[in-house]
Amino acid sequence: MLEIQKLLKKEKTKIVLVVLDGIGDLPVKDGKTPLELAQTPNLDSLAKDSATGLQIPVDYGITPGSGPGHLGIFGYDPLRYEIGRGILEALGLGLDVRESDVAIRGNFATVKYEDSQPIVVDRRAGRISTDENRRLIEKLSQKIKRIDDVEIILCSGREHRFSLILRFPHPLPSSAEQVNDTDPQAVNRAPLIPRGQSPEAEPIAEVARKFIDLAGEILRDEEKANYVLLRGFSVKPALEPFPRRFGLNSCCIAVYPMYKGLARLVGMDVITFEGEDIEDEIQALRQWWDAYDFFFIHIKKTDSYGEDGNFEGKVKVIEAFDRALPEVLKLNPDVLAITGDHSTPCKMKSHSWHPVPVLIYSPFVLGNTSQRFTERECLKGELGIFPSHKLMQVLLAHAGRLQKFGA
Amino acid sequence: MLEIQKLLKKEKTKIVLVVLDGIGDLPVKDGKTPLELAQTPNLDSLAKDSATGLQIPVDYGITPGSGPGHLGIFGYDPLRYEIGRGILEALGLGLDVRESDVAIRGNFATVKYEDSQPIVVDRRAGRISTDENRRLIEKLSQKIKRIDDVEIILCSGREHRFSLILRFPHPLPSSAEQVNDTDPQAVNRAPLIPRGQSPEAEPIAEVARKFIDLAGEILRDEEKANYVLLRGFSVKPALEPFPRRFGLNSCCIAVYPMYKGLARLVGMDVITFEGEDIEDEIQALRQWWDAYDFFFIHIKKTDSYGEDGNFEGKVKVIEAFDRALPEVLKLNPDVLAITGDHSTPCKMKSHSWHPVPVLIYSPFVLGNTSQRFTERECLKGELGIFPSHKLMQVLLAHAGRLQKFGA
Repeated sequence: MLEIQKLLKKEKTKIVLVVLDGIGDLPVKDGKTPLELAQTPNLDSLAKDSATGLQIPVDYGITPGSGPGHLGIFGYDPLRYEIGRGILEALGLGLDVRESDVAIRGNFATVKYEDSQPIVVDRRAGRISTDENRRLIEKLSQKIKRIDDVEIILCSGREHRFSLILRFPHPLPSSAEQVNDTDPQAVNRAPLIPRGQSPEAEPIAEVARKFIDLAGEILRDEEKANYVLLRGFSVKPALEPFPRRFGLNSCCIAVYPMYKGLARLVGMDVITFEGEDIEDEIQALRQWWDAYDFFFIHIKKTDSYGEDGNFEGKVKVIEAFDRALPEVLKLNPDVLAITGDHSTPCKMKSHSWHPVPVLIYSPFVLGNTSQRFTERECLKGELGIFPSHKLMQVLLAHAGRLQKFGA
Repeated sequence: MLEIQKLLKKEKTKIVLVVLDGIGDLPVKDGKTPLELAQTPNLDSLAKDSATGLQIPVDYGITPGSGPGHLGIFGYDPLRYEIGRGILEALGLGLDVRESDVAIRGNFATVKYEDSQPIVVDRRAGRISTDENRRLIEKLSQKIKRIDDVEIILCSGREHRFSLILRFPHPLPSSAEQVNDTDPQAVNRAPLIPRGQSPEAEPIAEVARKFIDLAGEILRDEEKANYVLLRGFSVKPALEPFPRRFGLNSCCIAVYPMYKGLARLVGMDVITFEGEDIEDEIQALRQWWDAYDFFFIHIKKTDSYGEDGNFEGKVKVIEAFDRALPEVLKLNPDVLAITGDHSTPCKMKSHSWHPVPVLIYSPFVLGNTSQRFTERECLKGELGIFPSHKLMQVLLAHAGRLQKFGA
């Protein structure tokens, strides 16, 4: 096992990692992919002078969620480090997750009572509106602020979904998350009672039981959402923080909460800035240029359009990024990498397993292997097809931040 | 460690895996390989619309036997799962191997007796004819049907070789195969006595000792083959059955016993059909189309001609397969994969370590990277060069049979 940390060298070089979310695609028109259809003079020129290739986020044939997709490009093998569902949900809602937290996915549900025993009649409370959800979360938050010495943090999601964080006064071990889901997975059944499957998990289960009882009382007279179901109990994964792991003073420039949350999870600073466009992100990059060694810039819309099956939209985002690219280059990063966290083919309207194009611009590349930054051109590149969690090593190398291995 | 089983999705999609045994090759004429020399309009057209690449059966530079070659493309890492020599010999002779069996390779040998002690004078009994072998096996089978509660199954191989199965009344652990070979590896030595190297192996060694003594008596008056040597004691490997591992109701369409045996070993159904040609195999595919999700079709002759160094023969088999290909496509498989279990270069007249071309036809490919299905064209493909045991994951992905990993 390579211990990359032992090879780290102190340097002042700067690395920019641009993640075009879900960038990889399949042919959508005239046999061409969105990257092939887009007019990208700046990217084309960059590709010729760069090392190119494709990365596999998790494993051959495996479609990654956003969590594993980002862990990989952040240099953590997603098969080794898992981010629990409760944590991801919380990050997606913009919640801060700490080492002393258990994050849980909640559902509002409808129950009837038989001999004081709740029986689930609708596991999603008729998919109540998000506004209704907000009203209920406000009501619960007002009445349940603490249970014993545990702080209770609630946040509305969409429709019947919410996020619950139990914030303990001390850090929790990974075994603390071993609490069963309470959703019985079918109607006309009693909700399951949360139980700790390990000694460390039992105190968590106990707080969860108390929360469920309190919430049940507070919601008792609600027409639809008169109960809560909990699942995906999870603690923050034990990750060596990114800045220490790679010796990089690191920050995240992103618009969506999920990606800020993922960056914060691995220990990056999250930059606050005005606006939501690519230009605003580049402006933030410029503004914070002197303060950091490593910049993770997340561009979301390529994925959103892929999920919608809107290839024209995806092409437009790619072209907008292409127009913004010279502004990034003007900053003279020592290493500029462009890739995605996974592919989102428009014809599939979902994430997929297809390898993701990657480009590394630095003085230390072979280059002149790919004429453009596209799936097919990157196949010709000097990086070949490689696991995403090796990318960080290659970026550090190009930044002159790794010593020789052995003598 | 990825647990693929947790990601399986129930679907009705169908996967066809065609294995052209030993398909990969090296230049044989005008700098071209048999795949390059062959006229293959149908394969050429398919290659353009497919994902292509090359797979490495075991590891870089490692030449696989048929067992590891097939285990890999069946999705089992051949470095992790080993098929014993005795098992492979038995499978090659068409014997059924069960969890309660010890399969052993036997040799007829010539011994002389010194003070009642046998001394090997010919380890192969002068390579007796296969007919003579059959007469002897018939004779032994008539007289040794059981030893204690163990059923004795014998089957002639070629010349001096035979297969012996000790069928116990109960399943055997993997340690039961730890019995030493009896072949002294040189003449003028006494055969070794089989001994159990583990407590579980000693009962097996005991039956083997009794078998050797009985066979020695029965063969005592034979001129050449008056003794037996045993080696390669092996039990069936502990493999999770293929149909459960990948959620695929699976069958094998093959002509040669070895490949039917390998398929049966991993739990596939083996289809019985008339004839031995590619057309007969395709006819069987058509006939059983509705009954299965996964079809393993094995075509042997590409390897046979490779082993003979007959490149013209190999080219002809490739062309025959090309003519049959439209009949496969007419069935509209959701995923069609074509590859080999290893390369068998004509100039080497043997298996080799060279990566094996692979093609995956499905609606979810990038495509248009390779103009033909050849070693050199597949190098340009979107699959790159990858370990054979990852192929099944990619096929499941293309068949829509895998859920997203993580959220």
